[in-house]
Amino acid sequence: MSQNTSVIHSRTIWVHPTNRKVIQVIDQRTLPHLYKVADLHTSDEVAQCIKEMWVRGAPLIGATAAYGMYLGSLEAKDQADIANYMKKVYEKLYRTRPTAVNLKWALERQMKIINIGQSSWDQLVEALFLEAGKIVEEDVEICYQIGLHGLSLIEDLYRVKENAINILTHCNAGRMATTEWGTATAPIYLAHQRGIPVHVWVDETRPRNQGANITSWELKQAGIPHTVIVDNMGGHLMQHAQVDICIVGTDRTTRQGDVANKIGTYLKALAAHDNHIPFYVALPSPTIDWSIKDGVREIPIEERNSDEVNYISGWDEIGNEVCRVRLTAVGVKGLNYGFDVTPAKYITGLITERGICLANEPSLLAMFPEMS
Amino acid sequence: MSQNTSVIHSRTIWVHPTNRKVIQVIDQRTLPHLYKVADLHTSDEVAQCIKEMWVRGAPLIGATAAYGMYLGSLEAKDQADIANYMKKVYEKLYRTRPTAVNLKWALERQMKIINIGQSSWDQLVEALFLEAGKIVEEDVEICYQIGLHGLSLIEDLYRVKENAINILTHCNAGRMATTEWGTATAPIYLAHQRGIPVHVWVDETRPRNQGANITSWELKQAGIPHTVIVDNMGGHLMQHAQVDICIVGTDRTTRQGDVANKIGTYLKALAAHDNHIPFYVALPSPTIDWSIKDGVREIPIEERNSDEVNYISGWDEIGNEVCRVRLTAVGVKGLNYGFDVTPAKYITGLITERGICLANEPSLLAMFPEMS
Repeated sequence: MSQNTSVIHSRTIWVHPTNRKVIQVIDQRTLPHLYKVADLHTSDEVAQCIKEMWVRGAPLIGATAAYGMYLGSLEAKDQADIANYMKKVYEKLYRTRPTAVNLKWALERQMKIINIGQSSWDQLVEALFLEAGKIVEEDVEICYQIGLHGLSLIEDLYRVKENAINILTHCNAGRMATTEWGTATAPIYLAHQRGIPVHVWVDETRPRNQGANITSWELKQAGIPHTVIVDNMGGHLMQHAQVDICIVGTDRTTRQGDVANKIGTYLKALAAHDNHIPFYVALPSPTIDWSIKDGVREIPIEERNSDEVNYISGWDEIGNEVCRVRLTAVGVKGLNYGFDVTPAKYITGLITERGICLANEPSLLAMFPEMS
Repeated sequence: MSQNTSVIHSRTIWVHPTNRKVIQVIDQRTLPHLYKVADLHTSDEVAQCIKEMWVRGAPLIGATAAYGMYLGSLEAKDQADIANYMKKVYEKLYRTRPTAVNLKWALERQMKIINIGQSSWDQLVEALFLEAGKIVEEDVEICYQIGLHGLSLIEDLYRVKENAINILTHCNAGRMATTEWGTATAPIYLAHQRGIPVHVWVDETRPRNQGANITSWELKQAGIPHTVIVDNMGGHLMQHAQVDICIVGTDRTTRQGDVANKIGTYLKALAAHDNHIPFYVALPSPTIDWSIKDGVREIPIEERNSDEVNYISGWDEIGNEVCRVRLTAVGVKGLNYGFDVTPAKYITGLITERGICLANEPSLLAMFPEMS
């Protein structure tokens, strides 16, 4: 279903240029070795695409799921009973990834369209199509605004240091996790565009290596200097003043500012705190879950297949292909939680599309008073 | 130079059973996939074996280097000028790995034998051979004593919990890092032998994956329940009370109790501290460097080839062989420090062969008054 192509798209999800019943995404599984575009024709394919992480990253998962609802509406056999069918599509898509709050948020936006009731099946299909497109455009704008706010932090550091700013990031909260710009990377892209010298420490981010595979790939596309490091190394670099700021993304943020992000984020936040290095989380407001407070206790953490620990994929330079190798002995047990929670007290600030605020409930509510 | 064998040796270094001019070690590079024994005939081969990490772990590096001096004495062409030749052998072996203090300590023990002056070349060779053997036997005894002292910690936890004790360890401070028993693993082996249920969380320990490759392998040989986790996961497990105690090894400990150990150890110590989980370091006293205090500032940290970050080895299940794959895109920069330093304030205690003490200078000196 995925094809190799040499055209690098600036968006990560888009409608097929000649067939609007097909949604196209970058199949991120073979990056950085092969660049592939996948065609999605059905809601089942969208569910598979999210579950198997052809796409990942909270905002992109949300956008993809929204288009999944649109594709679902196209395949409804009994158009009179479409509301019931769409509930099943909703359930199927909702079950794909448990942690990303955007997934639910995007699906519910589509359910609202359905529940309002449309005059015809055609109109419903069209409304879901337009709403998915709107979700994408809103995400692009949100990421750009996050970029502008985060840029001010990098500018401030640069005014003092007058030398390349070293930014550490974990996993991929980049363009490839959103529809464009990224969240944690948006300030980096903007700083680079405005001529501020930046250098990014890219945590490889085991087990799926999204840092080495995806963040490094997209920074390379943009010509931004960076170095891939193992997840174990950030603490040492921070002890030796090699990191000026950490910026990471988040899959879910609680109303008191606790942040669920890729497993290992918490360890970097502890090291930043120990070395007085600012630790920022870039987040589109849809990733805030206003219904919960205590992240460590309340956010369910996805347990993924232990094969991700026991195996790794890379490029076989002899066979010239992507190849999976086993890292552990046969029969060795692995455990694989996808996320951890960084308590708010270790977070210097949250970079949202509306501005930067402290990671606590009053500051978040001051930024989003409609949630009071 | 390495051969496959099905005999699993209880020691990690020994004299060839029929030719005492050959030293044999377990070639650890292909574990857990292939078990190989390597023959070492010359001091050059010993240098290569240490540098390329056929053997690793501070105590085993020391023992291997000591035998390297013995093999060096055998190859001296001008027996009258042996002292000068042995200085060169010393320098060559000393340069192989910069962080392990045991390396220097073992080499200096051999230099003392040389500097005392022996009545003949034959006698010198014999004295170096015996001294290397003594270093091995002393290490076995030291590790066993560490095991007994550390065992008391596990027994104390078990008395309260009355359920399997979860121990997290980083890298390999096991049997394979020493001559037998290991340092961090010695208490675990003894607890298991005495019927205390233990379960070990094994950090895979990128970039070289000594946890997944070696610790997991040796625990499996001993029938000890364990689970391999990515280095990112320990923090999450500690937040959720899944870790009862951390025990790690060390390559160098300063007189104030700062500990240089495999890169990433510092991050686990921070997480243990944040979650009130005891964090112990098991160390043979030869790894204490009494000449320095501030570990973060004073311990030189080995920078290794970035290929270790950009590539990984595993078992190719299709080709049935150990295979190296590239993880990053061509031309991506990687940085690879081998160790980090955990400040003493994050260490609950040091488990030495003489007993357990706090990680500070007065406690260490009370345990080793001869160093005052």
